[in-house]
Amino acid sequence: MPSFDALLDLPLYPVDRYAPLADRLKRLLATAADVIFVQAEAILALEATAASLAAPGLTAVNIVTSSYGSYFGTWLKRGGASVTDVVAEPGRPITVAAVKAALDALPSVGLIAVVHAESANGSLNPLPEIAALAKARSALLVVDAVASFGGHSVPVDALGVDVAIVGPQKALGGPTGLSVLSVSRRAWQQIAQSKARLSPSNLALSDIRDNWLDRGRGSPPGMPAALEFWALDAAIARIEAEGLDKVIARHALAARASRAGLRALGITPWIEDDTTASVLVTAAPIPDGISSRALVGAAAAFGVGLSPAPGDMAERLVRLDHTGPRAAFPVVLANVIAYGGALQRLGWTVDIPAAGRAVTEVYSEALRSSR
Amino acid sequence: MPSFDALLDLPLYPVDRYAPLADRLKRLLATAADVIFVQAEAILALEATAASLAAPGLTAVNIVTSSYGSYFGTWLKRGGASVTDVVAEPGRPITVAAVKAALDALPSVGLIAVVHAESANGSLNPLPEIAALAKARSALLVVDAVASFGGHSVPVDALGVDVAIVGPQKALGGPTGLSVLSVSRRAWQQIAQSKARLSPSNLALSDIRDNWLDRGRGSPPGMPAALEFWALDAAIARIEAEGLDKVIARHALAARASRAGLRALGITPWIEDDTTASVLVTAAPIPDGISSRALVGAAAAFGVGLSPAPGDMAERLVRLDHTGPRAAFPVVLANVIAYGGALQRLGWTVDIPAAGRAVTEVYSEALRSSR
Amino acid sequence: MPSFDALLDLPLYPVDRYAPLADRLKRLLATAADVIFVQAEAILALEATAASLAAPGLTAVNIVTSSYGSYFGTWLKRGGASVTDVVAEPGRPITVAAVKAALDALPSVGLIAVVHAESANGSLNPLPEIAALAKARSALLVVDAVASFGGHSVPVDALGVDVAIVGPQKALGGPTGLSVLSVSRRAWQQIAQSKARLSPSNLALSDIRDNWLDRGRGSPPGMPAALEFWALDAAIARIEAEGLDKVIARHALAARASRAGLRALGITPWIEDDTTASVLVTAAPIPDGISSRALVGAAAAFGVGLSPAPGDMAERLVRLDHTGPRAAFPVVLANVIAYGGALQRLGWTVDIPAAGRAVTEVYSEALRSSR
Amino acid sequence: MPSFDALLDLPLYPVDRYAPLADRLKRLLATAADVIFVQAEAILALEATAASLAAPGLTAVNIVTSSYGSYFGTWLKRGGASVTDVVAEPGRPITVAAVKAALDALPSVGLIAVVHAESANGSLNPLPEIAALAKARSALLVVDAVASFGGHSVPVDALGVDVAIVGPQKALGGPTGLSVLSVSRRAWQQIAQSKARLSPSNLALSDIRDNWLDRGRGSPPGMPAALEFWALDAAIARIEAEGLDKVIARHALAARASRAGLRALGITPWIEDDTTASVLVTAAPIPDGISSRALVGAAAAFGVGLSPAPGDMAERLVRLDHTGPRAAFPVVLANVIAYGGALQRLGWTVDIPAAGRAVTEVYSEALRSSR
Repeated sequence: MPSFDALLDLPLYPVDRYAPLADRLKRLLATAADVIFVQAEAILALEATAASLAAPGLTAVNIVTSSYGSYFGTWLKRGGASVTDVVAEPGRPITVAAVKAALDALPSVGLIAVVHAESANGSLNPLPEIAALAKARSALLVVDAVASFGGHSVPVDALGVDVAIVGPQKALGGPTGLSVLSVSRRAWQQIAQSKARLSPSNLALSDIRDNWLDRGRGSPPGMPAALEFWALDAAIARIEAEGLDKVIARHALAARASRAGLRALGITPWIEDDTTASVLVTAAPIPDGISSRALVGAAAAFGVGLSPAPGDMAERLVRLDHTGPRAAFPVVLANVIAYGGALQRLGWTVDIPAAGRAVTEVYSEALRSSR
Repeated sequence: MPSFDALLDLPLYPVDRYAPLADRLKRLLATAADVIFVQAEAILALEATAASLAAPGLTAVNIVTSSYGSYFGTWLKRGGASVTDVVAEPGRPITVAAVKAALDALPSVGLIAVVHAESANGSLNPLPEIAALAKARSALLVVDAVASFGGHSVPVDALGVDVAIVGPQKALGGPTGLSVLSVSRRAWQQIAQSKARLSPSNLALSDIRDNWLDRGRGSPPGMPAALEFWALDAAIARIEAEGLDKVIARHALAARASRAGLRALGITPWIEDDTTASVLVTAAPIPDGISSRALVGAAAAFGVGLSPAPGDMAERLVRLDHTGPRAAFPVVLANVIAYGGALQRLGWTVDIPAAGRAVTEVYSEALRSSR
Repeated sequence: MPSFDALLDLPLYPVDRYAPLADRLKRLLATAADVIFVQAEAILALEATAASLAAPGLTAVNIVTSSYGSYFGTWLKRGGASVTDVVAEPGRPITVAAVKAALDALPSVGLIAVVHAESANGSLNPLPEIAALAKARSALLVVDAVASFGGHSVPVDALGVDVAIVGPQKALGGPTGLSVLSVSRRAWQQIAQSKARLSPSNLALSDIRDNWLDRGRGSPPGMPAALEFWALDAAIARIEAEGLDKVIARHALAARASRAGLRALGITPWIEDDTTASVLVTAAPIPDGISSRALVGAAAAFGVGLSPAPGDMAERLVRLDHTGPRAAFPVVLANVIAYGGALQRLGWTVDIPAAGRAVTEVYSEALRSSR
Repeated sequence: MPSFDALLDLPLYPVDRYAPLADRLKRLLATAADVIFVQAEAILALEATAASLAAPGLTAVNIVTSSYGSYFGTWLKRGGASVTDVVAEPGRPITVAAVKAALDALPSVGLIAVVHAESANGSLNPLPEIAALAKARSALLVVDAVASFGGHSVPVDALGVDVAIVGPQKALGGPTGLSVLSVSRRAWQQIAQSKARLSPSNLALSDIRDNWLDRGRGSPPGMPAALEFWALDAAIARIEAEGLDKVIARHALAARASRAGLRALGITPWIEDDTTASVLVTAAPIPDGISSRALVGAAAAFGVGLSPAPGDMAERLVRLDHTGPRAAFPVVLANVIAYGGALQRLGWTVDIPAAGRAVTEVYSEALRSSR
C-alpha cells in the first residue's frame, strides 16, 4: 500500500553540511566563537547549558523574569554553583538597578545569566546594560536568546556574550527539536569542569565539544534528526535571503503596530514601556472579571489564536503572537481586532475602529519612510 | 550530493485509488453521473469540454460574462456548433431575462453553457433559473463551476447539470494542474459525435471515456501527474473532514464580511447586489484617477495581495481574495483594511475604522448565531 | 481540524522565476533558441507541437517507432499537412536507410519528426544521422526527447533541432504535469501559420509565444500549477548539482550493466544492438508460453516492478526501468535478478549467478576506469 | 522573496491527537501500561530512563553488549544504584548463562536492563529467557527496543517488560528526534524516587508523568516539535496499514536472505547463530588486511552504503542495513553483492554468482510459501 508523506523517507542531512550550517549561524550571530548544535528543544538546551557551566566554586547571579530563569538557577545550583537569584516583579522585566544591587552585594561573580526576551509575558530585559555589568566584573554572560534572536539584535561578540542559546522555532521560523549555542573560549574553560560529572551524555556540552567540534564537525554525536537539520537549513536560507536586518525590522514594526492598536482600543499593553517590550509577542491584559479561557475562546471564534500565558500570569495576560512569518500586517491586524472583538463580546467597551486605524497607520507610516 | 525536496521522488498515485477518488468527488457533487479527471488546468478542461461537445447540428446558447465564456463559444463554433452568445454587461452577471430572450429567439436549443461564478469580476450567475430554462427546453446544461464549487452549492443532479467542470485549486484548496468533470448520460451521447474529429487526444472526452471509464477506472490515460493526484486526494480529505456545508458557509461568511467592510469604508462593492456576488472573491472598484498598479502596490506594502482584474476590467476593479483556506477572518479583515489603507494613501477618503468594525461585527454575529 | 500536507497551501511559483528557470533549461539543452513551458503532460505537449506546426502545404516525414509517432502523424495530418509516415518494424528503431528512402521519394520536405528514445520498447533512433538528413534538405527537425533528455545527449543547436520536447518526469527526475519545449526561429515561422486555426488555446504554441515570450516571460498564461513549477525547479537544481554529463554517464552505465546482466542470464536484450538501445529503460523479451502478467507478477513478488509494454508489444517484452534516480547499481541489479528469478519460477532456465556477476563487473569496471 | 519548503510553516500537532497517538502505540506494543513521549533522540531517552529509575538502594543487573549498555550502567550508577554489569564478548550477544550467573551471585535484584537488538553489531539478545529470569526474581525489566521494535516481536505485557524504549527511526521508518516509552505501574513506583533529584527537567520521567499523563495527555511539556509528531503519526499509519506482523515478517525475510547471501559468498556472518542475529542489520566481517574505510569505499562506488561499525568493532565488521523500508529484495540483494564486489576488488575471493542465487532463492521460497 503505497502512501506519500513528505516527512518520511527523507535522506540523512549530509555529513559535510553540518560545519557550513554552523558557520552560517556564526555569521548571523556575529561571533567568532564556536557554534554548536544541541539536538533537543530549547528547554533541554537550557538545562544542558546550566548543568555544563555549573561547578562548585562558581558564583552566579541568575536573573529571573519567568519560570525559565527560575529553572536555570535550579540547574546551576544542582551542579554545585552558588546562585543568587535576582527576581523581577511577576510578569515584568528586570531593572538594571536590581541586577547592579545583587552584583554589588557579592565580593565577586563568575557568571550572570539572563533571558533576553520573555515569550511568557512579552518583556525584554536590558541586555546591553547587563552585558556592561558582566564585563566590568569579568563574569561569564549567558543569554537565553531563544525568544529574542531574529527579532532583537544579538551581536554576540560585540556584547561579550559567552553563551547564547538560540531556538530556531521562534523568529527564525524554523524547527523546534534542535537548538543552537554559541560558546566562547572562556565558557569552554568553565564547562571543562563539569565533564567528569556529566559525561557521557549528549547533553553534556563537553561531550559535544569532544565528539563534534574536536572531530572535524562531521555528523553530530548520536543519530541526528534529519527532519530538524533539513528544516533548520531551510529556515536559515530564508533568513539569509530576506536579510537579518530586515527580519528584525519586520518584527519591530509588528510590535509597534500591535502596541498602537492596543492603545487605540483603550487598552494599556501589559508591558507599558515600549523599550522593555519584546517584538515577538505583545502581551495584553485580561480585564478583571474575564477569564483567560473565555477571552481566548472568543478570539478563537474569529479564527485568531491568542496565546494564554503560562504559570502565574495565566489569568492576567494573553499574548498576541507576531513571531517569524507572523510578523506581518494581516496577522497583527487580526490579532488586535480579534482581541478587541473578544473583549467586546464579553461586555467590555473597546474602540475597535480606532484600533484598525492605528494598526493601519503604523504600517502606512513605515511604508512611507521606507521609500 | 543528497538533497531533499518533498516534491520529488514521490510514488505514483496508486492505480486502485483513482476510482475511489472519483467516487468521493461524486458524493461532493451530489451526482450519480460519471466523474472523470482531465489531466490539465481548468482552462484546458474547458477547451476539452467545448471541443468534445461541439458538433455540426448542435445549437448552443453560450452565456458570456468574462473571457472564459467568450472562449467557450469560440471552441463550440470551431467544432461546428451554431452558437448564440448571450453577453452580459462588462464585468456584470447575466440576467435571466437576457438568457430567456436568447432562448425564445431560437426554434430549439441543444446546449446552454454558463460560468457559475466569475473569479474575474466576482459575479455569480443565476444558475438555478438558468437550469430551469435548460430543463424546459431539454437542452444540455454545461456549467463552469471552477470558481464556484466549494463556495456555492452545485448539486449536479438536483439542478440537472449535464457537465460540471471543477477546478480543485479554488475553494477546495487543492492543486491546479488537474480538473474534474461530471458528465451525464445525455452529455456522453453528444460527446460521441466528436470522437472521429478529436481522437486520439488526451483532451478528447470520448478518449477518456474509452480509455478510463470503460476500462475499469484504473490508471488514467497518459502518464498521470503524481503530485496533482496526491494533492487532490489530500484536498478532498480536508473538505470531507470539515464538511462541504461548512466550507460553503465559511465562504459565505467571508463574502458577507468583505462586502460589509467595503460598504463601511464608504465603497460600493463592484457587484452591488449581494445575491449576484461570488463568495470566493469580492470585487472592489478602482476609483477614477487611481491606477490598478498603484492600488495593488499600495496594498502590497501592507503585505496584502489584492488581485488585479484580467482584461477590460483591469482598470476598473480589484479583487479581494477569500478563497479556500483564505476564507477566514484574518484574511478578510486584512484585505478590506489594506484596500482601504491603499486608497487612503492614494488620497482617497475612506472610513477605515468603520470598516474594521463592520468586518468584526459580521463575524461576531455569525458566531453568536452559530451557538 | 488542522492537518498537514506538504502538497497543499504552497505559494505560487514567483513571477520573476519563470524566465530564469527557462534560461537554466536553455543551458542544459545547449541552445540559444527560445525555451517555453507547456502546462500539461508530455503527450499533450506533443499534440500541441504537431497541431501548431501543421498547416496546409507542409510536407512532413514522420518517423514511427511506437504509438507516439503514430499519433504525431495523425495530428500533423489533422492540421492539413501532407504526411509520409516512415514506420519501423514493430518494437524496433528506425533505420537511416528507411528515412533516407522516404526523403528521396519526395520532391521536397518541410519537416522531419522523430522520437529520440522510445520508452515503449527501449530503442534509440539514430538522431545525429537523421539530423544530417534534415539539414541537407533544410527541413525542420522535431525531436520528441521526452524519454531521452537527461540520459542521451541532446545538443539542440549543434544538431540543428528546431523543436525539442522534453518531459521532466524521466531522466530529470522531475514532475509529470509540465513539459518544456525549445523552439527555433524557423519553427516559430511555421507555427505562425496555425495561429488562426488554433488560437485561443493554452495548447497553441503561438499563444504561448504571444502571451508569455512576447510579454516579458512573467507568469505563464492560465493558472500555472505551483506544484509542477516548484518541482521542476528542484529537479533542475539537482541536475545542475550533479552535472548533466554525469547524469548521462550514470544512465549509460545502468544500461550497459542491464544489458550485460540479461546476456549473462542467457537472454538476448530485445534491442540487440547496443548502439540503438535507450539508456533509460532496457527492454527484455517475454519468452513464448509466458504471459506478461505472469512475468510481471512473479517479479513483483521480489519487490521489483517490471513495466509491461504498451500496445502490440505487451506480450513480447517487458521493460527494466533505470531512469532518473533509478539509474543506480541496486536498482539495476534487482531488475535483472528479479527478471531472471521470475523466469525461473515460471519454468525457464536462466543463469542468475552469472547475471549477478555480470552486473557487478560492469559497475566494478566503470569504477576502476573512473579513478 | 517567496520560497517553498515543506518542512517549514507546518501547523502545530493538534493538542487532541497526542493521546490517540499514544494509544495507537500501546496497541502496537501490546500493552495496557502507560505510553509516553520523550522529546529527544533515543540516546537521550535512554539516559532519561536510567536516570529516572536509578536511586540509592536499587540493585541492578545491567547487560552490556555494546556501548549503549555500558552508558546505561553508568547512568544508573550516577543515580545511586548499585550496578552489576554483565558484559558479553565484544560484538556478541549475551548468553543466558552469563545473566543467570550474575543474578545468582546477588542476594536480590531490583532491575535488569538489556538491549534487545544491537544495531552496533547485528546481534539479538535472548529477551524471552531474560524476561523469565526477571519475573522469577520480581525484578523490573528494562528493554532498549530502539533497534528491535518493528522487526522483532516485543509483546510488552506478555513478556512482563516494565520499561520499553522505542525509537521510531528504525523499523518503523519514522522520525529520529522523538522517542516512545512504555512504563508499567511498578516502574512508576521506582521512578517516583528520583523526582526530587531530577525535577524540574523535561527528561525526568516523573515530570512527564506529572505534566502530561496526569494532566489529561494534552500538549506534552515544553514546546513539542511539530515535525517529529506529524512524522511519527504518518509512520505509525504506515505500520498500521501494512500490519505489524507483516512488517516483522518482512524484516525476518530480509535478514534470512542477507545471511544466506553472505554464506553463499563464502563468508560467515559475524553473528553465526541465526537465532541470535538482529533482523534490522546483518553484520559481516572485515577480512584481515582490509580496512573498514577501503571496504566501505569500494561498496559506495556501487551506490551501496555499508555502515561502518562504531567503537571497537570498527575494523572487524560492517553492517548491511535492511531496516524499515529497506527491508526489501532490491536493497538486500544490492547490499550483499556490493559487499562481495567490494571484497573482490580488494583482492578477496568470493562467489558473487552464488550469492545472487542464494538471495534470490530465499525470496523465491518465501513467495512460494506465502501463496
